[in-house]
Amino acid sequence: MNEFVRKAEGTALPWSKEEFEARIRAVGAERYHDKHEFHRMLHGGALNKNQVAAWALNRYCYQEAVPRKDAALMSRVYDREFRREWIHRIHDHDGLLPEETGGIERWLKLTDCLGLDRGYVTSMRGALPATRFAVEAYVRFVVEQPLVVAVASSLTELFAPSIHRERIAGMLANYSFVNDDVMAYFKRRLSQAPRDADFALEFVKENARTREAQEACIDAVRFKCDVLWAQLDALYLAYVVGMIPPGAYRPEGT
Amino acid sequence: MNEFVRKAEGTALPWSKEEFEARIRAVGAERYHDKHEFHRMLHGGALNKNQVAAWALNRYCYQEAVPRKDAALMSRVYDREFRREWIHRIHDHDGLLPEETGGIERWLKLTDCLGLDRGYVTSMRGALPATRFAVEAYVRFVVEQPLVVAVASSLTELFAPSIHRERIAGMLANYSFVNDDVMAYFKRRLSQAPRDADFALEFVKENARTREAQEACIDAVRFKCDVLWAQLDALYLAYVVGMIPPGAYRPEGT
Repeated sequence: MNEFVRKAEGTALPWSKEEFEARIRAVGAERYHDKHEFHRMLHGGALNKNQVAAWALNRYCYQEAVPRKDAALMSRVYDREFRREWIHRIHDHDGLLPEETGGIERWLKLTDCLGLDRGYVTSMRGALPATRFAVEAYVRFVVEQPLVVAVASSLTELFAPSIHRERIAGMLANYSFVNDDVMAYFKRRLSQAPRDADFALEFVKENARTREAQEACIDAVRFKCDVLWAQLDALYLAYVVGMIPPGAYRPEGT
Repeated sequence: MNEFVRKAEGTALPWSKEEFEARIRAVGAERYHDKHEFHRMLHGGALNKNQVAAWALNRYCYQEAVPRKDAALMSRVYDREFRREWIHRIHDHDGLLPEETGGIERWLKLTDCLGLDRGYVTSMRGALPATRFAVEAYVRFVVEQPLVVAVASSLTELFAPSIHRERIAGMLANYSFVNDDVMAYFKRRLSQAPRDADFALEFVKENARTREAQEACIDAVRFKCDVLWAQLDALYLAYVVGMIPPGAYRPEGT
């Protein structure tokens, strides 16, 4: 039983592709994490360096999980052309030999500049348990759901370029410890995410042929928004309210 | 790769059974969720009825997951005697035909008396995403980990009777909407949990034969504490701080 997917009315006709896409995009307006208070603070310069470090440390877990998620999804796909397209996502995060270092390495440049030890970051020992639970729920989702629904869960990328633009501007303007070089991850995603998202959107529009499948895809986008939102909720409670759970990262002097 | 289990020093000898047990019990003192502020408020009568309802609604997801977790664990066990013991846990939650209704049904008595619609509760649509992520991480843990480590994750039950005693007394004293009948779930667990925990503790002590396995078992108890703690963190942010995520239960009038 899949508890994330609600059943549509048995007799409903599929939406047109245009209406289906509009409904997918509406999820972003409703609950994408650019609306979260923690992001408002991050981009507006209202967080101190320790709070930005906590964010980067936790968000590392998400970056780390994404290529595993994409490999899990690809493992289910029999269409070679699909895999040849999707594999760009893994290259983008892990880097393609011989010379590309990839997005995870760029992310570690950010945690470096925040004074975090790389071994500590990559061990994920200091990450909030809620971060890990959310991120692994995403990996599991693409394994367990029908393929078109699994692909739909990536569609939050439709909403990503605006948050990345806002983040680059906000962080460069407000944080002296962040420079252009460190923001390389987000700059790369400005060009890569739209390409990935367009491919996934076309796939979903083409392959969700019943109303039930379309609704399941929209729920998948909501689910993914929940994965992102829950990470910021956990950061807010721990590092803004100050209720840091046992075992999680404690900035020096706190 | 199992990221929840840290490697022990290669040369360390196993702890004695007594020291191993003491270290397991020490995890409870360190991070069992009886220390969480939300529980302090719940048991002390500091929550209003809507906040108690939010707790019961979310905690339902945990109750609902436990028999699935136990079935997943049993599916890995070739020892019939082990299964004949472990199956009590499923009976305890689901009820054994013909006449036992089980702990989940008793839990729904609690959500009934809090004015929540049963269909809404059991749909889990209003639960916090963080609750679902934490709970499903627990189900997955017992599937993916070595069996002795999976069993060890149940050992938070060693710490449960005192929280249940405290909860029964605190809720009966402080909340007029809670009566003796509604507290039946916790009363039953006062007798059942120790039996379950003793069996699991003996199994873990007997079967974790290396220091590495012992440390992995202790990490499993920490992991399980994290699962419980993260649920209360999410409740606190949503229903005490008041940052309710999109789509989650909103008490009437809020």
